[in-house]
Amino acid sequence: MQSRTHTCGELRLSDAGKKVKLCGWLENFREVGAELGFVVIRDFYGTTQVVAENADMVKQFKAITKESTISVEGVVRERSSKNPKQETGDIEVVPEKVEILGRCRYSELPFEINHSREADETARLKYRYLDLRNPEVKKNIILRSQIIAALRSSMLDHGFMEITTPILTASSPEGARDYLVPARKHPGKFYALPQAPQQFKQLLMVSGIDRYFQIAPCFRDEDARGDRSPGEFYQLDMEMAFASQEDVFAVIEDVLPPIFAKYGTYNRASGAPFVRIPYLEALEKYGTDKPDLRIDLTVSDVTDLLRTPDFAPFADGVIKAVVISDFHESRKFIDKTMEAVEVQSGNKGYWFRVDENGELVGGISKFVAPKKDEVVKALSLESNTLVVLSAGDKGAAVKTAGVLVKTFGAAVPGHMDKEQYAFCWIVDFPMYEIGEESGELEFCHNPFSMPSGGLDILLKAEKGEVDPLTIMADQYDLVVNGVELSSGAVRNHDPEIMIKAFELVRLGEEDVKKKFPAMYNAFCYGAPPHAGIAPGVDRMIMLLAAEESIREIIPFPMNKNAQDVMMGAPSFVTDKQLEELHIKTTATEEE
Amino acid sequence: MQSRTHTCGELRLSDAGKKVKLCGWLENFREVGAELGFVVIRDFYGTTQVVAENADMVKQFKAITKESTISVEGVVRERSSKNPKQETGDIEVVPEKVEILGRCRYSELPFEINHSREADETARLKYRYLDLRNPEVKKNIILRSQIIAALRSSMLDHGFMEITTPILTASSPEGARDYLVPARKHPGKFYALPQAPQQFKQLLMVSGIDRYFQIAPCFRDEDARGDRSPGEFYQLDMEMAFASQEDVFAVIEDVLPPIFAKYGTYNRASGAPFVRIPYLEALEKYGTDKPDLRIDLTVSDVTDLLRTPDFAPFADGVIKAVVISDFHESRKFIDKTMEAVEVQSGNKGYWFRVDENGELVGGISKFVAPKKDEVVKALSLESNTLVVLSAGDKGAAVKTAGVLVKTFGAAVPGHMDKEQYAFCWIVDFPMYEIGEESGELEFCHNPFSMPSGGLDILLKAEKGEVDPLTIMADQYDLVVNGVELSSGAVRNHDPEIMIKAFELVRLGEEDVKKKFPAMYNAFCYGAPPHAGIAPGVDRMIMLLAAEESIREIIPFPMNKNAQDVMMGAPSFVTDKQLEELHIKTTATEEE
Repeated sequence: MQSRTHTCGELRLSDAGKKVKLCGWLENFREVGAELGFVVIRDFYGTTQVVAENADMVKQFKAITKESTISVEGVVRERSSKNPKQETGDIEVVPEKVEILGRCRYSELPFEINHSREADETARLKYRYLDLRNPEVKKNIILRSQIIAALRSSMLDHGFMEITTPILTASSPEGARDYLVPARKHPGKFYALPQAPQQFKQLLMVSGIDRYFQIAPCFRDEDARGDRSPGEFYQLDMEMAFASQEDVFAVIEDVLPPIFAKYGTYNRASGAPFVRIPYLEALEKYGTDKPDLRIDLTVSDVTDLLRTPDFAPFADGVIKAVVISDFHESRKFIDKTMEAVEVQSGNKGYWFRVDENGELVGGISKFVAPKKDEVVKALSLESNTLVVLSAGDKGAAVKTAGVLVKTFGAAVPGHMDKEQYAFCWIVDFPMYEIGEESGELEFCHNPFSMPSGGLDILLKAEKGEVDPLTIMADQYDLVVNGVELSSGAVRNHDPEIMIKAFELVRLGEEDVKKKFPAMYNAFCYGAPPHAGIAPGVDRMIMLLAAEESIREIIPFPMNKNAQDVMMGAPSFVTDKQLEELHIKTTATEEE
Repeated sequence: MQSRTHTCGELRLSDAGKKVKLCGWLENFREVGAELGFVVIRDFYGTTQVVAENADMVKQFKAITKESTISVEGVVRERSSKNPKQETGDIEVVPEKVEILGRCRYSELPFEINHSREADETARLKYRYLDLRNPEVKKNIILRSQIIAALRSSMLDHGFMEITTPILTASSPEGARDYLVPARKHPGKFYALPQAPQQFKQLLMVSGIDRYFQIAPCFRDEDARGDRSPGEFYQLDMEMAFASQEDVFAVIEDVLPPIFAKYGTYNRASGAPFVRIPYLEALEKYGTDKPDLRIDLTVSDVTDLLRTPDFAPFADGVIKAVVISDFHESRKFIDKTMEAVEVQSGNKGYWFRVDENGELVGGISKFVAPKKDEVVKALSLESNTLVVLSAGDKGAAVKTAGVLVKTFGAAVPGHMDKEQYAFCWIVDFPMYEIGEESGELEFCHNPFSMPSGGLDILLKAEKGEVDPLTIMADQYDLVVNGVELSSGAVRNHDPEIMIKAFELVRLGEEDVKKKFPAMYNAFCYGAPPHAGIAPGVDRMIMLLAAEESIREIIPFPMNKNAQDVMMGAPSFVTDKQLEELHIKTTATEEE
């Protein structure tokens, strides 16, 4: 095969007069007459117009089914009517020779290529190779590739070394459900696919690797969600030796914003340092530990202010208020937005308004009116302000307040500076809490994070000199635009501190060992203090591509039922395969 | 924790006088007296000497177990006796404060860190985190990381896009044994881990991706070999649309040599274009399809010349000769080298020598002597030449000749230009052969490669106008220094040609479909001509690191029994896990 001279996205006015050979898919042929027809030929790089100007050429193109691959040899010519929307829109190619390279056997396709996003999802997944020919679909996959390459390049620039860790590894009792792989050479035993390379990266730290990263495939056998594909997903996994929270923050604050600004739908991202919000403060102020800082609304506690026996929901429990100034929307708008809040939070929200004359009106205003002056003063209410409220036990009131902030913030004009990526760190997570069921002290988040204050603070707690509920963990969440990208932590690298941390919740060395034996053994041979994080790559790409479904940003996604309908996975296998693996199936799915 | 000011590989004479803080492992403490001791502290970047110069400091260091992590604050000082072998050998640090960061609990280690390569392999694998602290072990892992980063960067520079393909996919009837993963949501069905992303990359081509690559994890449930780890391995997988063999060669010839020269043990690698050797010619000339072109020896067929009833091995069958000029080694050398040849090939080799006077002497010279003039002329023999020979049926004679070339070429001075990476392409593989068992026409190598000449040549063969045994496939092997890095091919992208190729060996469309249903379906919707290759990454790294065992170039390798003895994989799992997966085990390994 003689090679193409140009791609379909390459020819410009300056190429006029050149003899060229293009290869690509026959996207369309529009027959104008027996001696005139317009062809669109498409490849990865773009489309080019080809004009058949004689009966023979028209006949030849007419005979080719759409979506066949062809080569066209011909001469480039300036177009009389240019198409400024097409990169090659200044020129067209007058063909001298056309050849079919790969015939499409079907005159009818499962869907129209350039409208595949509107097609049925099962058809799209089954014919993913046709779906991906749609430039709108393909562009997300290109974006994915660019973002991952940019993350890699930036991590390398920051002195990190990429190390791939094993994919066939040990099942862990912790965390989500493992994917298991029967071991042929070890009857009755199984490998597991890693839920994350957490243990391996910490073992690398103990091995003397200083700055590790990996675009790491992770596997959890969990049901699908909008932002979670069944099966596999990727993390930008990283870990640093002899490092503190500050070191991890500095790297992330340097690596992510330029990539978000360059590849995102919006070209603005927070600079370093990101806002840091203590966990408990985030709940108080934003009603969530995943605040969207593009919204300027915050939550106030008005429990004491508004408690009243006259209005049953405010008779006891907690009351939260969100004040929305400069409000000029309709009653219908309030009702509609409130409805959305109720659907999302599962709780009712309440409201009243300060009208243009400073009067409390609408909603529950009659229950607030008796304390008007107090309320106006406490919340600094001005004219044209909407106050939305939540009530109930503390958890529900806080959560609903968070949904009020998010929903009204996005809906009411002027309260969301949307076109940006607003990062923040959630810090100072409590190490312990009183378990709801047990009524006793339990770990709050990750038992393997380092308690702030190390061994000293634990010993003090043991002696009763410090309330264990006030002990914080050196743990942090990375949040952007209300989406949690990752948790991270300074790890507890010291067996002695680990055991003490466990003893406070009535456990001991054996429990530590049982959870992560390899890591615990390793830590006994001298481990460096280390810290890390693992932002979700798929979630970042969804954010940057502004896609709601994770399947739009994965080259070959499974469907919601964890099936690859194109490849036919999962599938039945032969008895011989099962015999070799020393297993039997105990049930059979009906086809 | 206050951060370190420098790494342990960083301080130079110009830093003398600075107050610094280092963190690292206490590699060694040598007590010279009650008031003098030398400490070596090690991190990822190097080692630094710390000098304890008072009784208190000596006591403090003495109390720390080796391999604990510590921080040392102190002042940099010029050393009186410098160590030119150590990058920081011009200075030492006089400590003011020492802190233990992570205590090593054991005063005795499973092996000495800096001599871990001599330790028992099981111990090394179990304590891989100690093994990796040995700079000699660690350097291969760093090399691996650098090579992979360089490959990625070069492929991106060549316009390739990295796309990760699914790891949970469908079991394929082709190729090696699959690793299977039971599907929780689909009782009785299984995912398989990909043996290679072959089908996905071809589907990407049909999807309109132009230049794809991936550092791709591949999985084959095969027993371990020296150059093959059980479980997973990596390929530099690539594929190009609208491309020919020439396009693939051009990319590989541009990408690999600079990386080999930069990261390899030798700093010289073949430039483009690589030598191309037709498959049949390689067998004739080098006795192998994996020639080591660093060796200047070649094979001659001397069957007609040397056939003689007087010497039984030469009475019938094929005889091959390798002429080694400028030979001055001893009889003992010949015997020893011949023995090595016999061990490796399983066949006896023969020899005779032309001495300094031009006489045929030694070995089988008396059987050759009668035809001396003919032989000398045909083989252009000069004084001081060794001729080594193989005989037997064609396969054995060729194979043994190949081993003669390799073994004598490496052993006899002057015949191997060793310190380089000599690449070549093996091309023109026959498409068909006569099956040894069936006696009928069969596929020779890969049935899915494009036959050179396409549909036309197949139609001619069908009509009897062309001998199918003369049809070549557009298939190629990449060989360097006698090691096959990869096979590649121009793929057969056309269902019509595919069916015709199968029909010649008495198969048809159904057989094609059965092997790769998704790919066959896709090809029916218009596929571009495409070609690719997938050099083995682990094998490349072994070559460049000059390591004989694949376990030396993998961060966390399994042992030869496919076990990760550090993590304890594979392992027994809970009944609940198996129930959820609808499987039962049918045998249990004894512990």
